[in-house]
Amino acid sequence: MFAAKIFTLYPEFFPGLLDIGMYRRAREKKIWSLDVVNIRDFAIDKHGSVDDKPFGGGSGMLMRPDVVNNCIEKNQNDNPIIYLSPKGDKLDTSLVKQFAQQAGINILCGHFEGVDQRVIEKNNIQEISIGDYVLSGGESAAIVVLDAILRTLPGVLGAEKSLDEETFNNNLLEYPQYTQPRNWEGITVPDVLLSGNHAEIKDWRLEQSRSITQRRRPDLWDKYNKKNN
Amino acid sequence: MFAAKIFTLYPEFFPGLLDIGMYRRAREKKIWSLDVVNIRDFAIDKHGSVDDKPFGGGSGMLMRPDVVNNCIEKNQNDNPIIYLSPKGDKLDTSLVKQFAQQAGINILCGHFEGVDQRVIEKNNIQEISIGDYVLSGGESAAIVVLDAILRTLPGVLGAEKSLDEETFNNNLLEYPQYTQPRNWEGITVPDVLLSGNHAEIKDWRLEQSRSITQRRRPDLWDKYNKKNN
Repeated sequence: MFAAKIFTLYPEFFPGLLDIGMYRRAREKKIWSLDVVNIRDFAIDKHGSVDDKPFGGGSGMLMRPDVVNNCIEKNQNDNPIIYLSPKGDKLDTSLVKQFAQQAGINILCGHFEGVDQRVIEKNNIQEISIGDYVLSGGESAAIVVLDAILRTLPGVLGAEKSLDEETFNNNLLEYPQYTQPRNWEGITVPDVLLSGNHAEIKDWRLEQSRSITQRRRPDLWDKYNKKNN
Repeated sequence: MFAAKIFTLYPEFFPGLLDIGMYRRAREKKIWSLDVVNIRDFAIDKHGSVDDKPFGGGSGMLMRPDVVNNCIEKNQNDNPIIYLSPKGDKLDTSLVKQFAQQAGINILCGHFEGVDQRVIEKNNIQEISIGDYVLSGGESAAIVVLDAILRTLPGVLGAEKSLDEETFNNNLLEYPQYTQPRNWEGITVPDVLLSGNHAEIKDWRLEQSRSITQRRRPDLWDKYNKKNN
């Protein structure tokens, strides 16, 4: 069982989207578990304060190292801890695979201006970014990280589902896909897809993937060419 | 008022995290609005089916173009439509700013294997990716896109909050931050932050930002140097 634990100031918003049908069923089948910890319960002073002003000036509030550390210590396990922050290492498919191979993951969600840096370093927490934009806190990013991990766990998606043909395998974006109706308002599905010729379909899809990757993502296209030439 | 509209098969999971305090208050103050549309309500056949198998083979199901188009047509407005997909253009701070300057945004959330490509092209829908990983559907990405946009709308964050010193401005990651207690388990806050010397603090923070960007994000570091040399 993959044990997910979330440290947050907003426990009431979980599981949220992690409770859609397939994830709920997977949780009932004990493929994964979710433990949501309210950081506020680990405040130290009698006012229950969790944040304070940053030293050196600047707007906003920072989460206190003593409170966050207390929360982490009292909920310790052997799984890695990540902290979601735009200055972290970029999440990608290979990082998702690494996380999914662990026994679980602990996710620290910052809020306000973030978390005091000392608690990150002391606990050997890996900073992870889901993309080059700023969010109000780590909560929406935590849902994204877990969504990306959970769907790769054995038994979550149908047995027939292959993860190998997806976007980012081999550094290519996915080819366009088509379904019923075959003729929709005069726009037809590409002939090759109706041909039944599997080799030709495979070639066409690879060519589409190459073309869209070259056009939209020169960075991935470079990586693809370096690996395949 | 910024008008957000979400087309989804899972309306019950919204507003979710978009209902945390500051966003709920901003919605009450009519800074933004949320309209969640259930794609299933726009199914065409009597079974209410929304998806079918992909032409050319492959696992999973695709959302039908006629159903999605019907849904979009009946909920038309002048705001741009985006479709969340790992093969889309990468979301970043500058794209977030562009979206935030519109009167609103319509977000199409795919599920299963995604959406028939014809409906994307016919409606001039921009494909957007929040990062190089695969999710179970567009819903968690929709929360992320709106979180990134909403916090930049005037009046959402406190008036004192400056967005200019954040990560990604000027292609630098943010410097580390520290708060109370000043001495935490023997680990002290860097002296310069207690000096009261604003020029020195500014220099130190810039140097920290440069150093962390160089170490963690050579791609951003390149961009920073091209702009500043």
